[in-house]
Amino acid sequence: MREVAVIGAGLCKFGFYPERGTLEMGEEAVWNALQDAGVKPKDIQVAYCGTVGVDASLGPMLVGHQILQTVGITGIPISRVENMCSSGSVAFRESWFAIQSGLYDIALAFGVEKLTSTLTKNAWRWRDLLREADEYEGSRGLFPTVIYSLMLTEHMEKYGTTREQTAMVAVKNRFHASMNPYACFQKPITVDDVLNSQPIARLINLLDCCPSCDGCSAVILASSEVAKKYTTKPVYVTASAQVSGTYKSDWPPFLSDVSRRSAKIAYEMAGIGPKDLDVAEIHDAFDINEIVDYEDLGFCGEGEGGPLVQSGATKLGGRLPINTGGGLLSRGHPFGATGCAQIAEITWQLKAQAGARQVQGAKVGLTHTLGGAHQGDMGNCYIHIFKR
Amino acid sequence: MREVAVIGAGLCKFGFYPERGTLEMGEEAVWNALQDAGVKPKDIQVAYCGTVGVDASLGPMLVGHQILQTVGITGIPISRVENMCSSGSVAFRESWFAIQSGLYDIALAFGVEKLTSTLTKNAWRWRDLLREADEYEGSRGLFPTVIYSLMLTEHMEKYGTTREQTAMVAVKNRFHASMNPYACFQKPITVDDVLNSQPIARLINLLDCCPSCDGCSAVILASSEVAKKYTTKPVYVTASAQVSGTYKSDWPPFLSDVSRRSAKIAYEMAGIGPKDLDVAEIHDAFDINEIVDYEDLGFCGEGEGGPLVQSGATKLGGRLPINTGGGLLSRGHPFGATGCAQIAEITWQLKAQAGARQVQGAKVGLTHTLGGAHQGDMGNCYIHIFKR
Repeated sequence: MREVAVIGAGLCKFGFYPERGTLEMGEEAVWNALQDAGVKPKDIQVAYCGTVGVDASLGPMLVGHQILQTVGITGIPISRVENMCSSGSVAFRESWFAIQSGLYDIALAFGVEKLTSTLTKNAWRWRDLLREADEYEGSRGLFPTVIYSLMLTEHMEKYGTTREQTAMVAVKNRFHASMNPYACFQKPITVDDVLNSQPIARLINLLDCCPSCDGCSAVILASSEVAKKYTTKPVYVTASAQVSGTYKSDWPPFLSDVSRRSAKIAYEMAGIGPKDLDVAEIHDAFDINEIVDYEDLGFCGEGEGGPLVQSGATKLGGRLPINTGGGLLSRGHPFGATGCAQIAEITWQLKAQAGARQVQGAKVGLTHTLGGAHQGDMGNCYIHIFKR
Repeated sequence: MREVAVIGAGLCKFGFYPERGTLEMGEEAVWNALQDAGVKPKDIQVAYCGTVGVDASLGPMLVGHQILQTVGITGIPISRVENMCSSGSVAFRESWFAIQSGLYDIALAFGVEKLTSTLTKNAWRWRDLLREADEYEGSRGLFPTVIYSLMLTEHMEKYGTTREQTAMVAVKNRFHASMNPYACFQKPITVDDVLNSQPIARLINLLDCCPSCDGCSAVILASSEVAKKYTTKPVYVTASAQVSGTYKSDWPPFLSDVSRRSAKIAYEMAGIGPKDLDVAEIHDAFDINEIVDYEDLGFCGEGEGGPLVQSGATKLGGRLPINTGGGLLSRGHPFGATGCAQIAEITWQLKAQAGARQVQGAKVGLTHTLGGAHQGDMGNCYIHIFKR
């Protein structure tokens, strides 16, 4: 297997930009990645764009091609990939495969999503279309908020997890985001802020949820031989795991099943265990999601996720800082842009470029992305492990 | 580079099924491919689903996962890929990459599209959404029919190509389709039928156009070591080329640019030239498209495409039979399903399984798929070359 490294990454600031175009966000993120890697547009040999295409399906097609044209990347193979919320991680994995083939030495993985225009301009029409299509999720009211509410209820009953503990995840990730100039929300919050924010579903308030915002992220990969020409600090990909799954039982929840199976594959592939990690970006679409991830990824035992966040172990300065970029909760969750944003954060941490939120001496990092649909009972998990 | 072979393929009959679900078509095609390859559902290790998602965007998500669940394939990595009309070829190429990595030995590439329900049920709403999104293509009237009308006009003026010659492409491909039980249209037609069919655009009548129908296609790939366990007739992939492009000049048309560049890469990779081909499936969205392809792929000189089809060289029994499966014109063009349907046809030809439409002694075959959007001035070309 060919050794592949990440040599640079770039984001645009995630946020709510109803008036800002997809191409403009894309241009900024891709350009930042090229600058970070010291790579010229003409050096990119293959590219993958991850996007759910909520916006693209209504108008501009080949959105990846159009974004790359803005920075002068044309002619090369460009493909769109999609697996719901994990679309960006598909882009990364396919880029890694393309380099594995030996056909290419430098690849660009990027992800983009524009959610505000759709939400504001077309929300009502989408609602009608979904209803007419007899969409399973919508027709049963099992939107993500409700699914995570059920998950939290079960976790509280089984393990004594508290609302204060879940709120601590949101507070921690916002604290990290306050040091990330690309994060959607940067103003620190308190546990009380979370507990007193607007109720959305049972036990889930507004600040327990990630924002559906706009954004783009990009990562540049190279074969190890070529990586050395561009950087003295290549960040090697030591594992790439992907699994899918379907609903099997109420507990452990479906998402735990895919996380656990992909974690097993990834740790074996990298030849390490969770104790060897210095930093990780994991899927925190809701704060309870991060607590369950801790357990699924082996950061603690089953049911110990609440106490783990309460101990401060997963905060910057702790034993294993989690979501130093702010996570989906505070960096934001523009679907297709999340996977490469997680990888960008780990790249910067392992290259010691993370500024105020730098994890000192970080050498091994992990990213974990979930993507589900269809009543949340069908989906994917991607785990990548990186080493400098 | 790891040697990879196609070991089996399957289709559902392409057609107009407003009442038939995507999952039902998918189940049939994937099941047929498993049967053809002698592979059990549990043996598939990784899968890629190519679909533009015209239907999926309105309702069912993770359509590939849902199709595979119907045949008992769950848990493995499943990803959706999309590049407009070439989406199925992306699925094939990514499957090939995944096996190249060494992580997997057996992959399933499939493509699906359901166009009738969208066209009938949602056409008006889509029209409104597209108009509101200020969609470039729609707002200028530059739909594919018009683009190919302009291409034909230019080709007639430059090279003396006749309407009879373009019609001969449609007649030839319908003749081939009459022997393909999976083709959308199987009833033979004449040049007069084409010339007297309903006018759609200048010089383009109904029978000059491919039908936007429903369908699914699937192909199973394996590393050469594993392929030998399943078949005595593995069909080796000797080249995989993908390029993208943007509009540069009125002539040669944009699509010729991407075809020519990918052909050059593919022929070099396979170490052969167009004269070494025994059979090919090429992108004939309109009959003039096939004539231009002949020239771009080196089957004849520039401007000689019309005389080539007239000579009978590209008909079954001729020097280089083209689109023996019926092509997009008669097998049909359910966007995402086209790429793997082309590969299925070449697989069957090289395995001598093509029945009445068998090209005797076929050993080397080629597939060529185009995918464009945004006023037809941005798109992709995929070429794969196969050898038994």
